[in-house]
Amino acid sequence: MSSVFSENIKLSIFGQSHAEAIGMTLDGIPAGEPIDRKELQTFLNRRAPGSNDWSTKRKESDEPHFVCGLIEDTTCGSPITALIYNKNTRSGDYDAIRDVPRPGHADMTAHMKYGGFQDVSGGGHFSGRLTAPLCIAGGICMQLLESKGIFMGATIVSIGKEKAKGFDPVTVSESDFCCVKSKMFPSLESETEERMKAEIAKALAEQDSVGGVIECAIVGLPVGLGTHMFDGMENRIARLAFAIPAVKGIEFGEGFASASMRGSENNDPFCLSGEQVKTRTNHHGGILGGITSGMPLVFRIAVKPTPSIGKEQDSVSLGKWEETKLQIKGRHDPCIVPRAVPCVEAIAALAIYDAYIEWEATRRAQIERGSV
Amino acid sequence: MSSVFSENIKLSIFGQSHAEAIGMTLDGIPAGEPIDRKELQTFLNRRAPGSNDWSTKRKESDEPHFVCGLIEDTTCGSPITALIYNKNTRSGDYDAIRDVPRPGHADMTAHMKYGGFQDVSGGGHFSGRLTAPLCIAGGICMQLLESKGIFMGATIVSIGKEKAKGFDPVTVSESDFCCVKSKMFPSLESETEERMKAEIAKALAEQDSVGGVIECAIVGLPVGLGTHMFDGMENRIARLAFAIPAVKGIEFGEGFASASMRGSENNDPFCLSGEQVKTRTNHHGGILGGITSGMPLVFRIAVKPTPSIGKEQDSVSLGKWEETKLQIKGRHDPCIVPRAVPCVEAIAALAIYDAYIEWEATRRAQIERGSV
Amino acid sequence: MSSVFSENIKLSIFGQSHAEAIGMTLDGIPAGEPIDRKELQTFLNRRAPGSNDWSTKRKESDEPHFVCGLIEDTTCGSPITALIYNKNTRSGDYDAIRDVPRPGHADMTAHMKYGGFQDVSGGGHFSGRLTAPLCIAGGICMQLLESKGIFMGATIVSIGKEKAKGFDPVTVSESDFCCVKSKMFPSLESETEERMKAEIAKALAEQDSVGGVIECAIVGLPVGLGTHMFDGMENRIARLAFAIPAVKGIEFGEGFASASMRGSENNDPFCLSGEQVKTRTNHHGGILGGITSGMPLVFRIAVKPTPSIGKEQDSVSLGKWEETKLQIKGRHDPCIVPRAVPCVEAIAALAIYDAYIEWEATRRAQIERGSV
Amino acid sequence: MSSVFSENIKLSIFGQSHAEAIGMTLDGIPAGEPIDRKELQTFLNRRAPGSNDWSTKRKESDEPHFVCGLIEDTTCGSPITALIYNKNTRSGDYDAIRDVPRPGHADMTAHMKYGGFQDVSGGGHFSGRLTAPLCIAGGICMQLLESKGIFMGATIVSIGKEKAKGFDPVTVSESDFCCVKSKMFPSLESETEERMKAEIAKALAEQDSVGGVIECAIVGLPVGLGTHMFDGMENRIARLAFAIPAVKGIEFGEGFASASMRGSENNDPFCLSGEQVKTRTNHHGGILGGITSGMPLVFRIAVKPTPSIGKEQDSVSLGKWEETKLQIKGRHDPCIVPRAVPCVEAIAALAIYDAYIEWEATRRAQIERGSV
Repeated sequence: MSSVFSENIKLSIFGQSHAEAIGMTLDGIPAGEPIDRKELQTFLNRRAPGSNDWSTKRKESDEPHFVCGLIEDTTCGSPITALIYNKNTRSGDYDAIRDVPRPGHADMTAHMKYGGFQDVSGGGHFSGRLTAPLCIAGGICMQLLESKGIFMGATIVSIGKEKAKGFDPVTVSESDFCCVKSKMFPSLESETEERMKAEIAKALAEQDSVGGVIECAIVGLPVGLGTHMFDGMENRIARLAFAIPAVKGIEFGEGFASASMRGSENNDPFCLSGEQVKTRTNHHGGILGGITSGMPLVFRIAVKPTPSIGKEQDSVSLGKWEETKLQIKGRHDPCIVPRAVPCVEAIAALAIYDAYIEWEATRRAQIERGSV
Repeated sequence: MSSVFSENIKLSIFGQSHAEAIGMTLDGIPAGEPIDRKELQTFLNRRAPGSNDWSTKRKESDEPHFVCGLIEDTTCGSPITALIYNKNTRSGDYDAIRDVPRPGHADMTAHMKYGGFQDVSGGGHFSGRLTAPLCIAGGICMQLLESKGIFMGATIVSIGKEKAKGFDPVTVSESDFCCVKSKMFPSLESETEERMKAEIAKALAEQDSVGGVIECAIVGLPVGLGTHMFDGMENRIARLAFAIPAVKGIEFGEGFASASMRGSENNDPFCLSGEQVKTRTNHHGGILGGITSGMPLVFRIAVKPTPSIGKEQDSVSLGKWEETKLQIKGRHDPCIVPRAVPCVEAIAALAIYDAYIEWEATRRAQIERGSV
Repeated sequence: MSSVFSENIKLSIFGQSHAEAIGMTLDGIPAGEPIDRKELQTFLNRRAPGSNDWSTKRKESDEPHFVCGLIEDTTCGSPITALIYNKNTRSGDYDAIRDVPRPGHADMTAHMKYGGFQDVSGGGHFSGRLTAPLCIAGGICMQLLESKGIFMGATIVSIGKEKAKGFDPVTVSESDFCCVKSKMFPSLESETEERMKAEIAKALAEQDSVGGVIECAIVGLPVGLGTHMFDGMENRIARLAFAIPAVKGIEFGEGFASASMRGSENNDPFCLSGEQVKTRTNHHGGILGGITSGMPLVFRIAVKPTPSIGKEQDSVSLGKWEETKLQIKGRHDPCIVPRAVPCVEAIAALAIYDAYIEWEATRRAQIERGSV
Repeated sequence: MSSVFSENIKLSIFGQSHAEAIGMTLDGIPAGEPIDRKELQTFLNRRAPGSNDWSTKRKESDEPHFVCGLIEDTTCGSPITALIYNKNTRSGDYDAIRDVPRPGHADMTAHMKYGGFQDVSGGGHFSGRLTAPLCIAGGICMQLLESKGIFMGATIVSIGKEKAKGFDPVTVSESDFCCVKSKMFPSLESETEERMKAEIAKALAEQDSVGGVIECAIVGLPVGLGTHMFDGMENRIARLAFAIPAVKGIEFGEGFASASMRGSENNDPFCLSGEQVKTRTNHHGGILGGITSGMPLVFRIAVKPTPSIGKEQDSVSLGKWEETKLQIKGRHDPCIVPRAVPCVEAIAALAIYDAYIEWEATRRAQIERGSV
C-alpha cells in the first residue's frame, strides 16, 4: 500500500491538488548535510507551470515551506517535512467530473476504489501536482549525490512523432546536464527542439494533447550500487518512475531495441581505463545484474499524451448510469513532457541515493576487512 | 536490500545456480488453500530447460520439494518453503569467469560489489535459474487467483526482428491463454512462430543469441486493485519484472507507442456494459492512476539477447589486469525468451495477488459501511 | 530506519519540539470513514499539558490542523496529514543543553549520533511533545475500531511506590474506560488516586520527579488478530510502545509475575460461552501465540521518572571536555504518567487497527471458501 | 504480517515442528564474512534439548544444513539458507490437540485464525522449536559483531520464586559471558543455581512447570546505534523478543523498577572516561532516546511457565462443543528458561547487527564531512 517509499530512506508524499497543501516527509537523511534552498527552488521551478504554450494556466509558485528537519538549512537528523500550499485552486471546474469520469484519468478507478469518497477536485491525490513534493525529495537527494560526485540530467528525446537525439551513453558528462537544465524545454538539439515545440502547439490548436519520451542519464556512479533480485537498480528506478502520472513505460540502456539485437551486438566488451573496468559501448545502460557498472546509467521513460483535452469525448454518467458526452474545461497542459523532465531526475536521485546509503555500509565492512 | 519482496505477501528467494539447492519461502498465504501440485509442475515445466533448439543442454527436472507450509497439499497458514535441488551442475565450466568477466553478465559487477567473494559458478545468485523459485511462488498465486476468476497468460510478440501479434487488449480471454500455454513456444500465430524459431536457429548456428518481447495479459480483474503513488499496479509489476534477468524494459497498454499518440487517440472512451463501466478501446492497458480498471491488464517486457554466446568477445583479466579475449564454453540458451514466458506470468501473479489481498480488506470495510 | 511505522497502515511522524510544527501522515485508511474531530480533540486534550500540578507550564492547545486527506471530516482515501503548530516555544531555555547533556535524556546520544547537528531545543525530535501526532494517528484508529465494537482504555496502576488496582482482566468493559477517560488523572480508585497525586506533589516540592505504571485493556476483539513470529500482537504493540519516550518496559497479561508462577496457575482453562471459546481466567492477557484469543487484551507499560529535574546533577561539558554540574531550568512535568495514558491507548489503537486490516482480508477468503 | 523480519537485514523463518524441516533465510549479510561453523554449532547446542531434568526427551541434533549463501564457510553475498531436518517426530502424540486445545498454547487461536487448517503436530509453526532457526540467524550475526568487538551474553536471574543476581550493569564484560556460556544452566551464582534447579525438579515431580527471567547484556557497543521513534534499540529488540514463544514481558535497564524511583535516583550522571562520555551508574540500560549510549545494553525477558504440563486441565472439545478435561502426554520441558537463554542472545544479536549496518553508512557520511 501506498504513498510511502520505504527502503533506506523513507519518503511519504501527501496532499491533494485542491487541498490546503501538498507535501512530503523525507526520513533517513543523515544530520549535518547542507541544503541549498536556492538551488532546490531552481530545480522545482523547472517543474512548476510556466508562461509558455505547453503549461497549464494554473499559476503556482511551488515554494516549499519546511516545517521541520532543517536548522538554518542544515539537516538535523530528524524527518524533513515540507509543504507547498495550494493557492490558485478553482475547484468549481471539477464539479462535472464526479459524475462523468474523464477518459484516460483516474477518475473512474478512484471512484470505484474509494466508493465515491475520493477527492475529485483537480484529480485529488492522483494529480500531476503531486510530483512537486516528489521533486522536493528528489532535489534534496540530488544535492547530496552531487557532493559525492554523482550528477544526473534528463532530456526530451521525442514529442509525438518528432524525435531528438539523447545523450551519448559512453561520453555523457555533467556539462551535458548543465546544458539541458538551463532550458525550459530541455533538449540537446536546437533544430528538433523547434519541431517538437511545433508539435505541441499544433496539438493545442486542435484542442488535443501529445506525449513524448524522456531520457535520463546519471554519471559518476561507483560500481556496486543495487542488490540482487527485487532490489536491483532497475527494480528501484522502475518502481519509482511509475509514481509519475502518465508514465506508461520504462527501458534501460538499449531497452526494447535490445530485444531485436543479437547478443554479439548488444554485449558491451570490457576494457581497462586506468584503475577501472569500463565497457567500450554502453548498451547495458550502466546496470548489469541489477548492479551499477560504473558506466553512465541511462534509462528512458514513455509519457502518454495528457488525458485532459478540450475535444469532446465519450464517457458515462455514473449518477444516471447512461452513456454521455464530456467536454473538459479547466486548465490543462497540452503536453506534460517538459514539466516531467525534472520529475524523472527526481526519481532517479531518490533511487540512487537510497542504494548509495546501503552500499556505503557494505563497502565500509569490506574496507575494514581489507578486501577492497 | 535484496531478494525479499515484502508487501502483503512476503517472498524470499534463495540459492545459487550451483549451490546444493535454490528455493523460496512464501509467507502470507491464507490457510486452507488447496495447491494442485500437478498443475504447478506443469507450469514449472514450461520454464525448465527442454529438448529443443533454444534451451541450454543442462538438464534439470525443476521439481519443487516442499519442506513446510503444506499439509497434504493444503496451505496451513505457516510460511511455505520449497527447494529445487541442483543436480546437473558442472562448475568446472565456470573457472575462467572468475578472472575474465563475461560481457553483458553480472560477473564484473558482482565481483566488485562482493569483493571477489561472490559465487561465480553458473552465475551464482544472478543465474536465470533463480527464476525457477520465482515461478513456484508465482504458480501458487496463479492458482489462488484462478479460484477467484482471474486468469493470465503470456505470449511471444517478437524474436529478434520477427514480430508476431499479441492479445486483443479488449477481447482477450482465458481461452487465448489455454492456447499459448499448451505450446513450448508460446505464440498466437503458427506462421510467425516458425519464422521466430528460425531466427533462433540462425543465431545458434552463428554461435550468437537473440532477444525478444513478451506480452502478458490478465483478465477477470475487479476494479480497484493497486494504490496511489508508489504502490500502483504498474509500480508493483515493474519492480518484480526486473527480477527476471535479461529484462531491460517494460511498458503497459500502448506503452512507448502512446508517447507518439495524440490524447484523443490514446484516451479510451468509457461505455456501459451491464453493471460495469468498460472502455471501448484499451490503450491504457487496464490501469488508470495505478488502479485496475476492470479491463484486461496488458503489459510487455523486453528481453535482451542472452549474453552468453559462443563467439569470441573482448574482455579483461581481472587478475593480470590486462585486456584479453573470452571464449565462453558451458551450456547456454541461444534465446531465453520462450523460457521467460512463464516467469512473466509468475511475476504478474505475484503482483496481482499481493494487491488483491489489500483490496479485499478495504472492500470489506466498504461493504460493511454500505458504500458498495 | 526511523519515524515511520510501515505495515498495513503507514504512519510517518515528523517535527521537533521547537520547530514550526510537529505532525503526522497516516496512509492506508480506507476512504469514506467519518472522523469526529470533536471527539479527537477531546482525546488529544487528555495528553495536552494542563493546569495541574504534574504538567509542564508550557501551554499548547495541541489542535491538529488537517492539510489533506479529509473532505468535510470524511476520509477520501489519500494520505491524511495533520500539523500541530508549536506556539509557546522558549528555545532560550535550552542553550545550555548543547554543551552539557541532561542525564537520562537523549541529549548526549543524539549529539554523538547526529554529529552535533541535532536540534537541541526542547529535545528536538526526541521530545515527549512528539507523542501529540502519535495521538492524532492513534485517535483516528480508535474511532475506526469503535465503529467495529472494539474499545480501549488505560489507567494508572502506580505512581512511585503507590499502587492502584487495574482492570479486572476478565470482566473489564467499555464502561470502565468511560470512567477513567473522564478524569485528568485516570485511575480506578479515588483513595489511591489521592495518594498517587500526593506522591507527585512531594516529588515536585523536592525538585524531583517520579515514574509509574500504566495498564491498558482492549475489549471487543475478534479471535485471530496478529500473525506468527515477528508480527504477533505483542511484537507490534511492544515495537510501538517504545516510541513513547520514558517507556522502559512492557508486559502482557501476568507478564513478569508469570515468571514466578507454576504452569498450573498461569494456564487459563478454556470454557464455552455461547458461541465462543473463552478462558475462565485471563493470565495470558488476551494473546496466545501472538494471536488475539477474544479475551480482553491487557498490557502494562513502565514509565521512568521524568529525567528533567530541578535538582543539581553531575554531567559533562562537551565543549570543554570536563565534568561539571547541571541545573535544569525550563518547564517540565514532575510526572509524565498521567499525560502518557492517552499515548498508550494511541499505540494500542495503531497496533490493533493495523492487525485488523490484515485479518479482514484473510477472513474474507475463509468466508468465501466456507471454512468459517 | 509474518515470519519475516525485514529491515536492513531480512530474515525469513520457516517450518513446523513436525514438518520435514525448519529453517531460515538471512539476506543482507555482506560477502566475504567467514562463518565459524563449529562455534555456531556450539551456540546452537546450548538451545538444543539436552540430557538433563529440564529438557524435553525429544532428541534433535539441531545441526544446520546450509543449502546456499556460503562458499567454503565464507558468505558470498547471496541469501544464506539453512535447514534443520526434523528427525525425532512423534506426531501421534498430538492427535488429541486438534479437538481439545491446550490451555496457554496457541492451539485455540491458531485453530480459529487458520480455520482448522493449521498444522497441529508439535504446535506447528508456533512450536518453541522454531527458535532453532532464529538461533542460526542470531548466531551468524553474533560472530560478525564479535569481529567488531561487540560481545553479548545472557544469564538466568530467576526461576519461579528463586532469584539470582544479574550482570553488574557498569562493569559487565566479555569474561562474564564466557562464564555463563560454558554452563548448560547459565547462571552467575553456584548457590542460587542449585536452588533454581531444585525449583524445576520440584515442578517436574508435581507434573507442573515453572517460568523465570533472563537478563541479557551487550558490551563494546559504539554510541549511536538505533534511530528515533519506531526504530530505537528498545523497539527493535522488543519486537524480536516476542518472537520467542512464552515471552510475556521485556524491560530495559531498571525497567519496571524505574517506575517506582525518583528522577534523581534513576538518572545516570555523565562522567568522562578517556575519550568517551560514560555514566557512573547504568539505570538507563545503555539506551537513551532509543540510541545506544556506549554503556552496556541491559535488558530482561519474562518467560512464562511452559504451558504443557502433565496435570489434568480444563478445556473444551471443539468438535463436540462441550467442556472437557485434558491430560497432555507428549514430551515437554518443565522449564524452558535455560534453553531460552541463547534465543535471547540471538534476538539481541539480530537487532544490534541490523542497527549496526545502518549506523555504519551514516557514520561514513560523517567521517567524509569531517564532523566526526
